[in-house]
Amino acid sequence: MNIRNIKDPSFLKDLSITSLDELSSDIRTFLIQNISKTGGHFSSNLGIVELTVALHYVFDSPKDRILFDVGHQSYVHKILTGRINDFDTLRQLNGLSGFQKRYESVHDHFEAGHSSTAISGAIGMAIARDLNKEKYEIISIVGDAALMSGMSLEALNHLGSLKNKVIIVLNDNDMSIGKNVGGLSIFLNDVRRSSKYRVARDNYVSVLSKTKLGNKIYTLSKSVKEKIKKRIMAESMFSEFGVDYIGPVDGHNLRDLIDAFMMAKEMPHSVVVHVHTKKGKGYPLAEYDKQGIYHGVSPFDYSKGIIPQNDKIMESWSQLISNHIDYLMNKDDDIVVITPAMITGSALRDCFLHHPQRCFDVGIAEEHAMTLTAGLSLNHKKPYLTIYSSFIQRAYDQLNHDIARMDLPCLIGIDRAGLVGEDGDTHHGVFELSAFLSIPHIIYMTPKDGLEATKMINTAMFNHDHPYLLRFPKGSVKKVELNTLETIEVGSWQWIIDNKESSITVVTYDIKVNQVKTMIEEKNLNISLINARFFKPMDDKVLDELVNRKQKVLVYETDMLNGGLGSLMSHYYHKNHKDIEMYFMGIDDHYVPQGKINELLKEEHLDIEHLYLKLKEISNEEREN
Amino acid sequence: MNIRNIKDPSFLKDLSITSLDELSSDIRTFLIQNISKTGGHFSSNLGIVELTVALHYVFDSPKDRILFDVGHQSYVHKILTGRINDFDTLRQLNGLSGFQKRYESVHDHFEAGHSSTAISGAIGMAIARDLNKEKYEIISIVGDAALMSGMSLEALNHLGSLKNKVIIVLNDNDMSIGKNVGGLSIFLNDVRRSSKYRVARDNYVSVLSKTKLGNKIYTLSKSVKEKIKKRIMAESMFSEFGVDYIGPVDGHNLRDLIDAFMMAKEMPHSVVVHVHTKKGKGYPLAEYDKQGIYHGVSPFDYSKGIIPQNDKIMESWSQLISNHIDYLMNKDDDIVVITPAMITGSALRDCFLHHPQRCFDVGIAEEHAMTLTAGLSLNHKKPYLTIYSSFIQRAYDQLNHDIARMDLPCLIGIDRAGLVGEDGDTHHGVFELSAFLSIPHIIYMTPKDGLEATKMINTAMFNHDHPYLLRFPKGSVKKVELNTLETIEVGSWQWIIDNKESSITVVTYDIKVNQVKTMIEEKNLNISLINARFFKPMDDKVLDELVNRKQKVLVYETDMLNGGLGSLMSHYYHKNHKDIEMYFMGIDDHYVPQGKINELLKEEHLDIEHLYLKLKEISNEEREN
Repeated sequence: MNIRNIKDPSFLKDLSITSLDELSSDIRTFLIQNISKTGGHFSSNLGIVELTVALHYVFDSPKDRILFDVGHQSYVHKILTGRINDFDTLRQLNGLSGFQKRYESVHDHFEAGHSSTAISGAIGMAIARDLNKEKYEIISIVGDAALMSGMSLEALNHLGSLKNKVIIVLNDNDMSIGKNVGGLSIFLNDVRRSSKYRVARDNYVSVLSKTKLGNKIYTLSKSVKEKIKKRIMAESMFSEFGVDYIGPVDGHNLRDLIDAFMMAKEMPHSVVVHVHTKKGKGYPLAEYDKQGIYHGVSPFDYSKGIIPQNDKIMESWSQLISNHIDYLMNKDDDIVVITPAMITGSALRDCFLHHPQRCFDVGIAEEHAMTLTAGLSLNHKKPYLTIYSSFIQRAYDQLNHDIARMDLPCLIGIDRAGLVGEDGDTHHGVFELSAFLSIPHIIYMTPKDGLEATKMINTAMFNHDHPYLLRFPKGSVKKVELNTLETIEVGSWQWIIDNKESSITVVTYDIKVNQVKTMIEEKNLNISLINARFFKPMDDKVLDELVNRKQKVLVYETDMLNGGLGSLMSHYYHKNHKDIEMYFMGIDDHYVPQGKINELLKEEHLDIEHLYLKLKEISNEEREN
Repeated sequence: MNIRNIKDPSFLKDLSITSLDELSSDIRTFLIQNISKTGGHFSSNLGIVELTVALHYVFDSPKDRILFDVGHQSYVHKILTGRINDFDTLRQLNGLSGFQKRYESVHDHFEAGHSSTAISGAIGMAIARDLNKEKYEIISIVGDAALMSGMSLEALNHLGSLKNKVIIVLNDNDMSIGKNVGGLSIFLNDVRRSSKYRVARDNYVSVLSKTKLGNKIYTLSKSVKEKIKKRIMAESMFSEFGVDYIGPVDGHNLRDLIDAFMMAKEMPHSVVVHVHTKKGKGYPLAEYDKQGIYHGVSPFDYSKGIIPQNDKIMESWSQLISNHIDYLMNKDDDIVVITPAMITGSALRDCFLHHPQRCFDVGIAEEHAMTLTAGLSLNHKKPYLTIYSSFIQRAYDQLNHDIARMDLPCLIGIDRAGLVGEDGDTHHGVFELSAFLSIPHIIYMTPKDGLEATKMINTAMFNHDHPYLLRFPKGSVKKVELNTLETIEVGSWQWIIDNKESSITVVTYDIKVNQVKTMIEEKNLNISLINARFFKPMDDKVLDELVNRKQKVLVYETDMLNGGLGSLMSHYYHKNHKDIEMYFMGIDDHYVPQGKINELLKEEHLDIEHLYLKLKEISNEEREN
């Protein structure tokens, strides 16, 4: 059949294994051609084709509920549930989401973006289902790295004491985003390589080869089923959580997958089906990609593969900051680096390569990462921990209770701050600023450019007196020519354009500083500009000077308006009983969808053009008054 | 020896087992007499006497570092490290902390209060120690419930892949704060009751009986030690995390404990020592306490035990709110209750008793609890989840990403909001308000009294349209006579004293509303008063009316000043270009220590007397102008 005509997964039930294999092959070709065109999550979706086909063959969606943990690997599910013709708009403004979304389809029951939530969600659904006396299956597909995150383990532990049935499909691809770490990972690896795998697999094949396909293979005599069960239900870590186990199953063998899922379906209680898949399956460059280059891709020519760009002028913010950390590590043996599974994302490969003894990837474990950082600082190391803004939400308590409360010297890089674009509402780093501002002891800073970033890093590492938070955006920045060892004064703001005669001063931060400067200069406006590079402490002198000048102040933010810098400044003025006319730009009280960052800024009326309009509006008011 | 004379633990090394037993007995007597006088954590400290004595016998504190997870069970450690004469001031303003504090002693290397941080902290310290090429042991004492929290499991998983040695003492008392839940708990229970325990124990005794005490017992021939090792290193859950295991050990047998710790000390790699202790050991009422009444106690007469108070007028806020939930559960089968290990703390016993099928204790797992709530809501249940304010910090991301982003109807009780008193800086619920205000979709409310609380619960349950947050303080409240099914208008503030001629209006919330009302009436002040019972949405009409009246506004808060209600209001007025004279009271940018709530409010200049002074000051300004 033409996969373009798929409306829902019911057609699968009538297909033979051969046809299902052909279908999988067609889907894989489609994925390679289309993701390489639009960009998106590449390797994980190629790895999960047969697994998803088998799930929809065995289960009845939407009655049965299929929850993809994170959801970035749900493309095949989207194809099988009638969304193939939306793939041209994948991850674009108003287009198909790269994650499960309830508004998109009745087949999407849960939404995520952050890792390790799907088992908890599934258990909640299962308890509700059983209280409602409804009958259907709930299946969570969870990656091996996500399973080892604390939240998944909490859920697994709870599940083991409940009678409510949930099927967990452990999508074990041995490498998730970065290389898995941890004892459990080593254990899974052993299972994967153990003879049990072969035994179980041979058994499947020999039994299945004697039967006809279709429904008949599932009406095996009970004794034969028992035999299979016994062989493949290996003793495993899951038994200690009180959950049954089937596996490991070859994730690219439809017969094995279907049989394992049928067995899981027939079981009266919760079970983990351990499926071994290969990320990037069917696209050799992705299959052999050890660095995660093909995990999330920008558009590329699939006939050639991703060609690394060697930009002489620009590099990513993450790279620039990691480079400087790497540089400082050569000078100071006390600097250590911690990342929660983001070696590639946070561009830490060089640090890990040059200083393997002092770099630590703890897996998807933001909570542990933060308190590990506390321990390192307590024993006189100078830790650099970097986490994406959206993911550091997971470590709010550890930052507050373990780092800030003990006032422990360290540097915390907050990567991907602000809008991040195509990943959408679950990933925008727009909350952490408001959430963290009320935490005592922290020095909270954000640089306008690469040089300022390196000076801020120096300030944190040389002062080594408090927890420093360094917030930086997604995207690229002009490279820094020479490494500097200069520092900057803590809490100092900077007049970028200082015109005492201006009627308006714009206060902004990060890359917006230079964008606004350029605009003011190009339009030849009589407007002053401040780089508010420290959120904590703020620069009281500059704040007071603004009042003295009797200028209007426009605080231009692209994070949440509530509780952000503007709000902090506003509070400051009221507290000090200083009259000032203030204007604010920032994200209203809602979740921002997916789209290119520039498009989103425009939609939110927060791009430079809207800033210009706002400034004109304020000026006109002025004249009217 | 007189335990009052203990300066540091070095004297222990010279004692015989008999003397150590006597010492333990003396310490236990001291604890019973003193905690019953001052209040504090009772059962957990009685349970850990021999364990702590054995630790200090085997290890050399402060060179070796002993980290108590949470830290509420560190009283014996405090006695052995020279702090016994400070116990009169336990948990009081400027007195001895109920937790480990670095400023108190060189024997306290780590601080906590929240659960499950000590393994992460220890690993960080161990990595630093090894990089520094220092030699000493790092020991974490972790309860069985705390071990099953996600953060501990993340740390354990990381530890399994590291060479850096940490000793984890699993203080398994089978009941922690509430009853443990989860598959791992069932598993531990099996281990505890298995024959292995007896075998291991008998072995200890038979070997040890052949040796002399003192140093000699540790110079056993290698082969004998190997024998012991083999027997007692049972296969266990920890092997899957890649960590070695010794146990279970009788936590009240000093010989067994010392031997197990010696063995752990000699091992070159990380190991879990599984110790089985009895909470409340030595005080029968506490030993047989299944409800956790003796977990944290107020002063009581130890010769009589705790006598339940049957107050006809007052009850705890937790109890009042749980009572109303229980009442509604009788009327609506869709209401379900979730708690992270706080059945007693959140006064949920009646709910669990009356509706066992619809009440869920998930253990110390705030993250899982929140997303479980999401799952229940997605399948059309009406969940009530309640978490202490300070602990809900652990679930910031799940509230934002899983509940608010999907705008899922539910009610989240935020217990112990505001200052909590004697638990001190780690437990004050003063941050969550500022941290959560920037989250979209939430309805955020706090009642002034019991009746308003029940109306707010009704509003959330009947409207069932968004996530509702209900914030309430520690302490007691006047009982509600009759259950009501009335609701209140979402976002509506209330003029408690509405005097258009006042020059000042006080805006405040929760129990402060009636306190301020009383003060205004008693002092016969010409001041208006508003009950700002919704933080989100705020009441724009009232906010604007305040401007129209040209009154000064004093926002009186006892949470963090930064990012709180006052800050939100200030921002509102600047955004809307409305002139208003504002004054603020709230907690300055610092951590508040321990003490009685009233004492702390006074110290922070936030009690009613200081409010009165502030009002007078504002009035005088008025006259001077």
